[in-house]
Amino acid sequence: MGEFDLIAHYFARPARPGTGLALGVGDDCALLAPAPGMQLAVSTDMLVEGRHFLSTVDPARLGHKALAVNLSDLAAAGAKPLAFTLALSLPAVDEAWLAGFARGLFALADAHGCQVAGGDTTKGPLNICITVFGEVPAGAALLRSGARPGDDVWVSGTLGDARLALEIFRGTLDAPAEVFAAARARMEQPTPRVALGQALRGVATSAVDISDGLVGDLGHILRASGVGATLDADAATDLIAARAGGTGAAALFDPQTWRTLALAGGDDYELAFTAPADRRAAVEAAGRASATPVARIGRIEAEAGLRIVDRAGRPVDQRFASFDHFG
Amino acid sequence: MGEFDLIAHYFARPARPGTGLALGVGDDCALLAPAPGMQLAVSTDMLVEGRHFLSTVDPARLGHKALAVNLSDLAAAGAKPLAFTLALSLPAVDEAWLAGFARGLFALADAHGCQVAGGDTTKGPLNICITVFGEVPAGAALLRSGARPGDDVWVSGTLGDARLALEIFRGTLDAPAEVFAAARARMEQPTPRVALGQALRGVATSAVDISDGLVGDLGHILRASGVGATLDADAATDLIAARAGGTGAAALFDPQTWRTLALAGGDDYELAFTAPADRRAAVEAAGRASATPVARIGRIEAEAGLRIVDRAGRPVDQRFASFDHFG
Repeated sequence: MGEFDLIAHYFARPARPGTGLALGVGDDCALLAPAPGMQLAVSTDMLVEGRHFLSTVDPARLGHKALAVNLSDLAAAGAKPLAFTLALSLPAVDEAWLAGFARGLFALADAHGCQVAGGDTTKGPLNICITVFGEVPAGAALLRSGARPGDDVWVSGTLGDARLALEIFRGTLDAPAEVFAAARARMEQPTPRVALGQALRGVATSAVDISDGLVGDLGHILRASGVGATLDADAATDLIAARAGGTGAAALFDPQTWRTLALAGGDDYELAFTAPADRRAAVEAAGRASATPVARIGRIEAEAGLRIVDRAGRPVDQRFASFDHFG
Repeated sequence: MGEFDLIAHYFARPARPGTGLALGVGDDCALLAPAPGMQLAVSTDMLVEGRHFLSTVDPARLGHKALAVNLSDLAAAGAKPLAFTLALSLPAVDEAWLAGFARGLFALADAHGCQVAGGDTTKGPLNICITVFGEVPAGAALLRSGARPGDDVWVSGTLGDARLALEIFRGTLDAPAEVFAAARARMEQPTPRVALGQALRGVATSAVDISDGLVGDLGHILRASGVGATLDADAATDLIAARAGGTGAAALFDPQTWRTLALAGGDDYELAFTAPADRRAAVEAAGRASATPVARIGRIEAEAGLRIVDRAGRPVDQRFASFDHFG
């Protein structure tokens, strides 16, 4: 089977009429036609075996994750998913793998109305590169640069579970099977907060998606906005699903380990965002409207830098390095 | 050096005001703002070491080629380059390599007013994935599907030289040093026919870029348009620069080899296109306006299939397989 048959068989789908995708797979270019007054949000992510996923991962889960990490960037911009391109380097043509990968990919794509616009397939070490396109009204995109002193710092969903699963895989941490299973699902099938991102347009002053760890990614907001923040490490740690679940789960690890998972775990694909203190009700309404939990975990301040404190406001004396793919 | 420094140092550039790129590198998404009435043409290509380029290639030439193959897709759609994203997997941080790659990439990008919109960098086997964006007036894009019986078949520039260089590298063909040097430049630094593509809007009825060989890529037009064609193999072979150059160059190889290079070589990044016979003057004017040679090498017919003939119209009894990256 040649590369073109491959693409056609597993990934080619016609563009749906009346959408922002005027021409889909099958020509030299796809054609996107954003509605008048809309800008096109664009993001690209490359996933490499051994770096972003393990060779043992179920291909359907990998298909989900490869698109999810890109949709998460659209979510952080407050954009509505429109289409994506898929470039795939494969060591060999494995039809069972391709079928599973396509199933996971399109299940998530369909759930978000995100159509395949084109792609490329070649032989080589396993590598997945997706570029995603979304629509956002001109001037309404959430940026990293809008945080202001006095804003609250919020995060969506749960933190740290993906990293917990990775550390259990690596053998550096150990946990009961049911804890591992739940954490592994968070690692392998993250939920991009697409509906929340759109609901936060006009409410949040800045947003970022948490891919490299809360501390590192919040740092992007602080630098882009020229502000600092104080973060409640205990409030963040409360958001680890594995820690909250089951009797005595919190006793599995010491407090420093839990804090590291929550604050520097990475691979969460949650949103960290800021909003004025007088918009708390609006943030909570956005969370309810998108069926996404939101939690307030800090405050933006004029003084540069990130100050990490415990529930009582005492400084936490611990370093939280960002998860770096060249680290 | 961490991945973020890497990206910032070599590839981050601010978006130029007043262009279609409203927000560039540095946020979760870039924001594209096509002018009113414009559609956005999108294409993605993934280049893998050993498959699309040799490990010995000069990084500046590789930077050029990685973008050139994408710009070639925009050219085939008649689109004006606007921006691109770059995802890069690197086995290690080699600053000299990165500087060279960025130099070659941006030299070509700047020549076409194509701005970097974002990217991703990770550790892994060398892999370059570029997604490119161009503007085209709604309804004016050149497609593969518009060829009609009676249309002429045209190609731009030269054919076969890139494949000749590859075969000399592989040791299957041998040629004098000056022939090799010129062919190698065509392989390593193809010229995307961007200006020609735009000049052909409203003139050409269909277009495709020649990446996998003329016969295979023209086949995409024939299938998409529901037509067939007769192709003059000798006229195509006359377009090999190496064959035309120097005394006795044509005698270097037998006619079958030259024909294979021209008709099934691949990696040409020229345009194959069709236009009505009564628009020959307009095609030639588009060639002159874009300073791009164009040559008429065949005719579209109602009968399906591709018939390859010599200058006298006699069938050429030779198979021309398309260059397939899984072949």
